[in-house]
Amino acid sequence: MAAAPLPSYSSYQYMLVTSPAPYVAHVQINRPEKLNSFSQPVWLEFGRVFDQLSGDAEVRAVVLSGAGERAFTTGLDVKAASEDSILSAKTADPARKAKLMRSHIEEFQGSVGALEKCEKPVICVLHGISIGLAIDIACCADIRICASSTHFAVKEVDIGLAADIGTLARLPKIVGSTSWVKDVCLTARDFSAQEALSVGFVSQVHEDKTAAVAAGTALAKALAGKSPVAVQGTKELLNYGREHGTADSLRYTTIWNSVALQGSDFPTALQSGLRKTRPTFEKL
Amino acid sequence: MAAAPLPSYSSYQYMLVTSPAPYVAHVQINRPEKLNSFSQPVWLEFGRVFDQLSGDAEVRAVVLSGAGERAFTTGLDVKAASEDSILSAKTADPARKAKLMRSHIEEFQGSVGALEKCEKPVICVLHGISIGLAIDIACCADIRICASSTHFAVKEVDIGLAADIGTLARLPKIVGSTSWVKDVCLTARDFSAQEALSVGFVSQVHEDKTAAVAAGTALAKALAGKSPVAVQGTKELLNYGREHGTADSLRYTTIWNSVALQGSDFPTALQSGLRKTRPTFEKL
Amino acid sequence: MAAAPLPSYSSYQYMLVTSPAPYVAHVQINRPEKLNSFSQPVWLEFGRVFDQLSGDAEVRAVVLSGAGERAFTTGLDVKAASEDSILSAKTADPARKAKLMRSHIEEFQGSVGALEKCEKPVICVLHGISIGLAIDIACCADIRICASSTHFAVKEVDIGLAADIGTLARLPKIVGSTSWVKDVCLTARDFSAQEALSVGFVSQVHEDKTAAVAAGTALAKALAGKSPVAVQGTKELLNYGREHGTADSLRYTTIWNSVALQGSDFPTALQSGLRKTRPTFEKL
Amino acid sequence: MAAAPLPSYSSYQYMLVTSPAPYVAHVQINRPEKLNSFSQPVWLEFGRVFDQLSGDAEVRAVVLSGAGERAFTTGLDVKAASEDSILSAKTADPARKAKLMRSHIEEFQGSVGALEKCEKPVICVLHGISIGLAIDIACCADIRICASSTHFAVKEVDIGLAADIGTLARLPKIVGSTSWVKDVCLTARDFSAQEALSVGFVSQVHEDKTAAVAAGTALAKALAGKSPVAVQGTKELLNYGREHGTADSLRYTTIWNSVALQGSDFPTALQSGLRKTRPTFEKL
Amino acid sequence: MAAAPLPSYSSYQYMLVTSPAPYVAHVQINRPEKLNSFSQPVWLEFGRVFDQLSGDAEVRAVVLSGAGERAFTTGLDVKAASEDSILSAKTADPARKAKLMRSHIEEFQGSVGALEKCEKPVICVLHGISIGLAIDIACCADIRICASSTHFAVKEVDIGLAADIGTLARLPKIVGSTSWVKDVCLTARDFSAQEALSVGFVSQVHEDKTAAVAAGTALAKALAGKSPVAVQGTKELLNYGREHGTADSLRYTTIWNSVALQGSDFPTALQSGLRKTRPTFEKL
Amino acid sequence: MAAAPLPSYSSYQYMLVTSPAPYVAHVQINRPEKLNSFSQPVWLEFGRVFDQLSGDAEVRAVVLSGAGERAFTTGLDVKAASEDSILSAKTADPARKAKLMRSHIEEFQGSVGALEKCEKPVICVLHGISIGLAIDIACCADIRICASSTHFAVKEVDIGLAADIGTLARLPKIVGSTSWVKDVCLTARDFSAQEALSVGFVSQVHEDKTAAVAAGTALAKALAGKSPVAVQGTKELLNYGREHGTADSLRYTTIWNSVALQGSDFPTALQSGLRKTRPTFEKL
Repeated sequence: MAAAPLPSYSSYQYMLVTSPAPYVAHVQINRPEKLNSFSQPVWLEFGRVFDQLSGDAEVRAVVLSGAGERAFTTGLDVKAASEDSILSAKTADPARKAKLMRSHIEEFQGSVGALEKCEKPVICVLHGISIGLAIDIACCADIRICASSTHFAVKEVDIGLAADIGTLARLPKIVGSTSWVKDVCLTARDFSAQEALSVGFVSQVHEDKTAAVAAGTALAKALAGKSPVAVQGTKELLNYGREHGTADSLRYTTIWNSVALQGSDFPTALQSGLRKTRPTFEKL
Repeated sequence: MAAAPLPSYSSYQYMLVTSPAPYVAHVQINRPEKLNSFSQPVWLEFGRVFDQLSGDAEVRAVVLSGAGERAFTTGLDVKAASEDSILSAKTADPARKAKLMRSHIEEFQGSVGALEKCEKPVICVLHGISIGLAIDIACCADIRICASSTHFAVKEVDIGLAADIGTLARLPKIVGSTSWVKDVCLTARDFSAQEALSVGFVSQVHEDKTAAVAAGTALAKALAGKSPVAVQGTKELLNYGREHGTADSLRYTTIWNSVALQGSDFPTALQSGLRKTRPTFEKL
Repeated sequence: MAAAPLPSYSSYQYMLVTSPAPYVAHVQINRPEKLNSFSQPVWLEFGRVFDQLSGDAEVRAVVLSGAGERAFTTGLDVKAASEDSILSAKTADPARKAKLMRSHIEEFQGSVGALEKCEKPVICVLHGISIGLAIDIACCADIRICASSTHFAVKEVDIGLAADIGTLARLPKIVGSTSWVKDVCLTARDFSAQEALSVGFVSQVHEDKTAAVAAGTALAKALAGKSPVAVQGTKELLNYGREHGTADSLRYTTIWNSVALQGSDFPTALQSGLRKTRPTFEKL
Repeated sequence: MAAAPLPSYSSYQYMLVTSPAPYVAHVQINRPEKLNSFSQPVWLEFGRVFDQLSGDAEVRAVVLSGAGERAFTTGLDVKAASEDSILSAKTADPARKAKLMRSHIEEFQGSVGALEKCEKPVICVLHGISIGLAIDIACCADIRICASSTHFAVKEVDIGLAADIGTLARLPKIVGSTSWVKDVCLTARDFSAQEALSVGFVSQVHEDKTAAVAAGTALAKALAGKSPVAVQGTKELLNYGREHGTADSLRYTTIWNSVALQGSDFPTALQSGLRKTRPTFEKL
Repeated sequence: MAAAPLPSYSSYQYMLVTSPAPYVAHVQINRPEKLNSFSQPVWLEFGRVFDQLSGDAEVRAVVLSGAGERAFTTGLDVKAASEDSILSAKTADPARKAKLMRSHIEEFQGSVGALEKCEKPVICVLHGISIGLAIDIACCADIRICASSTHFAVKEVDIGLAADIGTLARLPKIVGSTSWVKDVCLTARDFSAQEALSVGFVSQVHEDKTAAVAAGTALAKALAGKSPVAVQGTKELLNYGREHGTADSLRYTTIWNSVALQGSDFPTALQSGLRKTRPTFEKL
Repeated sequence: MAAAPLPSYSSYQYMLVTSPAPYVAHVQINRPEKLNSFSQPVWLEFGRVFDQLSGDAEVRAVVLSGAGERAFTTGLDVKAASEDSILSAKTADPARKAKLMRSHIEEFQGSVGALEKCEKPVICVLHGISIGLAIDIACCADIRICASSTHFAVKEVDIGLAADIGTLARLPKIVGSTSWVKDVCLTARDFSAQEALSVGFVSQVHEDKTAAVAAGTALAKALAGKSPVAVQGTKELLNYGREHGTADSLRYTTIWNSVALQGSDFPTALQSGLRKTRPTFEKL
C-alpha cells in the first residue's frame, strides 16, 4: 500500500489510514515487524482511530487489514505483556491487584470495542496468522472476509487464560453453531479459511491477501455510494437486534426511523430508483 | 389456484384463503397484477387474516405464498408510498411528523407481526421476486422454503432507509452468520435460493413454485395430523426460547406444560404410538 | 468398555464412570437393555453424577456416551412414564395437578441441566437411536460429535407434548437456522448425522460409535492437558455470553479474569510456550 | 357531571367522556347502578376509549374517575363472570380450556393496559369502593389521587384467584415497599386513603370525591397548558425507564430526543420563559 | 415456645418448627446460646427446612422468628467463620482459592434463598439484634414485621466485606429509597424499628417480641384460611413481577392462571362470598 | 470554603476539589456567579473530575456540593444553550441534525454519568435552587442530603423538553412512588426538602447549607475510615442489584467476592473488631 495516509489520520504511529476511494477509509494495523502484535500503545491507538472514523463525515465505509504478508495480527505482544507491571506485581494484595486488572481489561476491551461502536460499517480483511486478539477484533467488525491461506485460532487457552477482550462474549452471537464455537475456544486449535467460511465466521474467502483486500475495498466502495442514513441506521439496528428481544428492537427501530425517514435520503433514493439515475447524498 | 376461498375468509380482497387439506389453510397474497406489493390496505388485511387464523379451531397449519408467477412480493407499493400523506407532509414540525411516523410504522409492524403471533405454525413458500417486505414477512414465519429461482434481497438500503418492519430485529436471531446477515442488509445485494439454503435462511429449495407449494402443503398436512396441543405449544416455546434466557425459558416451559399435559392429547398420542394406530385429536 | 468404574463413582446403578486417561472421565448411560431410556431413578442419578464431576479436582474433561450398540438413548422410558402416579392421577383438581407437574418437570429439568452446570467441559458422543431426551441432553453439552449412522429426532410432538426438558429453550440458541430448528421440532421427523453436521448441531461425524468415542476421548485428553483455569473459565464465559448481552458479558468477563489471571496458570503456560515445554498445572 | 359528552366520544355506552377544559378529557366509568363493575362489554369499551384518546390531537391530558358516589369500581361484575361460558365450560379438556382462558385474560389485560399505552398523561381519581380491578386500572395510570374516604383492596385472593389483569405485575414496580405490597395482595385486606398515601400508591388525598375530581382536573389543565412534545415524551421515557436498565434507557432517551428537540416546542418554551409570556404549542 | 415440634420436622437441630394453628408453621432459628448466629451446619439446615415447607401440603403459611430474647440473629458465627478452612487457606493459588469461595458463597446463598423459593408465604418477625445475615434472610421473606426495640444493621462493611448472601441484590428492589439503602449498606450504621417502618423495610412494628410473634401468627392464620391456589399464585406472581418487565410478567400471569383458574378454589370462594359462608379448600 | 484545592485537581476551572479530611474529597461546582449553571465546558470538566476521583487511591469518599449560597445548580446554562450551534442549526436535514444531537446528548449523559461510574461513594449535598440538571446529577450520587430550604424541580418540561441527562431513566429506580415521580416530572412543579425526604429522594435534611455540608463531610469521613474493598464493593454491588434481576446479581456478587475476600481487609477488620482496635487499610 503505497498510498499516503489521510492527512487527518497522519499522526498515528501504529495505524496507517489511507483512502482508496471517495468516502472509503482503509485502516492497516501497521507494525509488520512485530507481526502486528498489540502492546498497550497499539491498542490505545486502535481505539482512537475508530473513534475518529465514527465521527468523520468524509468516511462512509471502512476496510481494516494488517500490514505485511505474514499476519493480520498474532495478538497480544507477549513480550510486552510479560513486562507489564500489573501482571508482574506479585506482591500486591489479591483484592487490590484485582482492581488494577479490572481497570486494565476494561481499557483494553474499550479500545477494541471502539470498532463495534464506530457508526460506519467496517469490513475486516484477514490473512496470514490471525490468532488471539485477531478474533476479538474480527468479532467487532460487521463483515469478515479473508485470504484462503488465513490461519485462525482462538489461542488464549494455550497461554493459560480465558479470552477477555470480547471473543467469548461475541462469538456465540455471531456464529450459529455453538458446538463449533466451543470446540475452537476450548481447544485453541487452528482452523482454516475454508472452515471459517463453512460455519459462517467469514462470508467470503479470496485467493490471497491482495485479492481479499481488493474485494473488501470494492465492498466498501459499494457501501460508500449508498445513503449514509440508510447504511449507518442498518448497522445500528442490526447490532441492536442482536442484543435485544424482538419487541424492544421493533420499538427502537420505530423511534430511530421516525427521524431518519425525515431526511432527504429516502426521497432522493426513491426518485433515483424511479429515474434510474445515480443518487448523491449529503454528508453524515 | 382454482380452489374456492374458505367461506369464513371470503371477504378479504387481497388475501385468498383456501383449504387444500383438512385443518390446513393456504393464504395467498393475491395482488399479482401489482407483483403482490403492499399498500396500507394490503398490510391491514394481511394482519387481520393471521389474527383470524390464530383463533380458528378448523386450522392447524398454514401455508403462505404469493399469487402469480413473478413474485412472492416486491415489497412496498412504492407508488402508493410516494403518495402517502405522512411521508409527503413536508411542512410539519419534525417532532410532530415523528409522531405520525411512529404510529404508521407501528401499525405496519403490527400487521406483519400478526404472522409471528398466529398460534398455528406457518410455512412460508417463496418464489420469484422476494425482496424488501418479503424478507420481513418470511422472518415472521416458522419454516421457510422456496423455489430454486427465487430472487431475494433486503432491498431497503437502496431506497434510502433502514428496514423497519422487522428484518433487522429478527434476521440476526434466525440465521447463524452475522457476517452474512450484515453483508446482505448493508449492500442490499441479491441472493439466490441456494445461498439462502446454505446459510439456513430457508430449509428447503424446490425446483419451481409448484413443487415448493406442494412441499409446503405436504408439510402443513403432516403438522395438521399431529396433536394441536403439542404443535402449538412447540411453536410458542421455541419463539419464547429465542427471545429469553435459558432459565426463564425453562420456567415458562414448566408452567405451560403443567396444563398442556393435562389435556387428552398426551395419552391419546401415547396410546396410538403403542398400538400403531392413527390418533385423532380434539379441536383447539 | 471393559474399564473398571472410577472408585468414587462406583455406587451409581445406571451410570458407568471410567477414566480412559488422566483427568478424563467417561460417563456412560448404562441401561442398554432398555436402550438407555430414562425413568426417574435414571435421571436423578444422571444429575448426581454431573454434580459430582463438577467438583472433582481429578477430572478436567468429560466424555458422555450411551452404552450398547443400539442407542445413545431412546428418551423417556414410556412404560415407566405411563405408570407415573402424577400423570395418571386423573381425579385431581387441575390446579393441584399442575403443582405436582411443575415440581416433576423442574426436578427432571434440574437433573438434565446438571450437565450444563458442570464446570468441566463435556463432550457428548451420540450414536444409534438418539431421540427425545437425547436431544435435551446433547443441548446441555459443550461439544457434540456423533457416529455416521446416528438417527436423531426431536420426538416429543409425536407423543402429544411440547419438549420440556430443555430442547425448546436451548436449541434456538445453539444452532443458527431457526427454519431448520422449527422444522425438526414441529414435525418430529428423523434427521441424520450428516444433516446434524451441516446445520451445526454436531461438529464432527465419525464412521461408527467406536471411532466417535475414540475421537471424543482424544478431544477430552487434549483439554485435560491444558490449564484448567483457562478451560473452565472459557466454558463459563461462553455460556454466559450466550445468555447475556455483550456489555454485561464483557463486564462479567472482566470480574472473572481479575482473579483467574492471578493464578499460576497464566505465567506457567506463557513460560512453557516460550520454552516449548509441556506445562503442568495445579489441580482445580 | 352534567357536561355533555364530547361529540367524538358520544357513542360509548359505559364510558362518559367530557371536556372540562381545553385539551382536557374527563373519562367516567359510567355504570353507577352496578357500582361501575366490569363485564366484558365494559372492559372492551374501556380499551377503545383510551386507544382513541391516545391518538386524539385535541386531548393533552386525561382525568379518569368513576360515576356515582359509591364506587370508583367494585371490580369484576361477578354475576356476569359467573355466567361466563369460558369459566363455566366444565366439560372441556384442561389443555383446551387453558387456551380459551389465555385468550380471555389477554383480551382483558389488553383492554386495561390501553390506559398505560395511551400517550397522554392520565390522572386516576379514586373514591368510594375501589377494589379488585380498581387497583389494576389505577396501576396503569400515571398519577393517582383519591378522596379521603376511599376504601381500597386488592381483593382477588378472596375470590380464590391471583390478580391477573396487571396488579401483580405492576404494583411491585410502582410502590417502594414490597413488604406492604405483599401484605395487601396476600391478605386482600382493606386499606385506607391515608395508608395509600403513606406508602406512595397515591400522591394526593382530598376531602371528598368532588374535591379530588377538581384537583385532578386542575392538574390535567396544568399539563394541558405545557408543551405536548415535552409532556408526552416525559410519560414515554418514565415508563421506559421503569421497565429497562439505565444504559438502555439513556440510549432510548437519546434517540427519542434527537427528533423531539427538533420540534418547535423547545424554542417556543425557551423564548416564553425568557420573555415571561405564556407559550402556545401546536397540536400533537 | 413450649410447643412440641411438628413430628415431620423433629430431626432438625438448629431449627424448631411448631404449628401454632392449622396449616401454619412457625420456624424458630433455635440457637439462642449463640444469639442464633449461623455456622455452616445452621445455614444448611435453614435451607432444608424451607425446602421441606415448600412441598408440605399441611402448611399454607409460615412464621419465621429467632428463639430467645436477645437476637433474631447476630449473623455469621464469626468464630466458626474464622476457623473456616476456605478462608484461612492462605497458601492457595488465588485462582484456585476463588473456586473454593464461589462454591462456598453459592451454597450459602442457596440455603438462605430457599426461603424466597418456598412456595408458601413467609412472615419474618424480627426482634432484638437483627444484623448482617438477619437482613439477608429478611429480604427473602414476603412480609417483614418487628418488635419496637429491634436493632438493625447491614453490618458487613464493618467486617471488611460486601454483603454477599443477598442483601445487596434484593434490598434495592424491596425498599423504595436507594439513598437510604446506600446509607445503611455503606455506613453499616444501626437503624431502629421505627426507621425500618418509615422506609418500608418492615410493614408493622409491635410493642415487643411477644406481640410481634402474635401478630405474625395471626397474619399467617388469616392467610392459611384462604385459597392456597390464590395465595401461592399471588406470591409467585409478585416475585416474578419484581424481577421481570411488565409485558413478560403479564404473559407469565396469563399462562399461570390458565390452569390455576381451572381449580375448584375460584368457584368455591366465589360461592362462599355470595352465600357469606366460610370456604374450605383442598390441600395444595 | 477557604481550603486550597488538592494539588492534583488544581487545574480545573469550574470544579473546586479540596480535602477536608484524610481520604475525603470535596468537589464543589464552582461557578456561583452563574448560579453553577452548566455550559459544555462545565459538564466536560464535571465528567473528568469524577473519572479522576474514581482512580485516585488517595480518595475513599466524595462530597459534592455547589459553591455559593443561592444554588446547587440552576441546571443548563440557557444562554449558552441558546447559542449552541447544534440546536440552532435550523437548516440541517432532520436525519443529519439527529446525528449531531445524538452525539451531543451522549457526551452530556456521559459526563454526568461519570459520577455514577466513580468507584468511590459520592454524597450529594443539595441546597438553594436545585433544578433541572441538579436532579440528573443527584440521581447519579449514592446518598442525597440537603438543606431545609432547598428548592427542587424537574424543570425540563417547562422549557419544552423531556429530561434527557438521566432523570427519567434513574428516578423511577431510586424513589419508591411512581405516582410522585410522574407528578413532579410531568408538572415541573417545585418540591421542598421536606417532600424530598418524605418520598425518599433525599435521606437527610439539615438546617442550612453549612450544616448539610458538615453532615455530608462527616458521613464521608466515616466511610473513609472503613475498608475500601468493602465500601467500593458495596457501591458496585448495589448499583448492579438495581439494574439486574436477583439471580444475575447473586452470581455477580459471588464472582466479585471470590477475589475481594482474598484481600487483607476482611481479616484486618475481623481482628480489629474482636480486639476493639481501629483498623488501618491499604490504599485502593
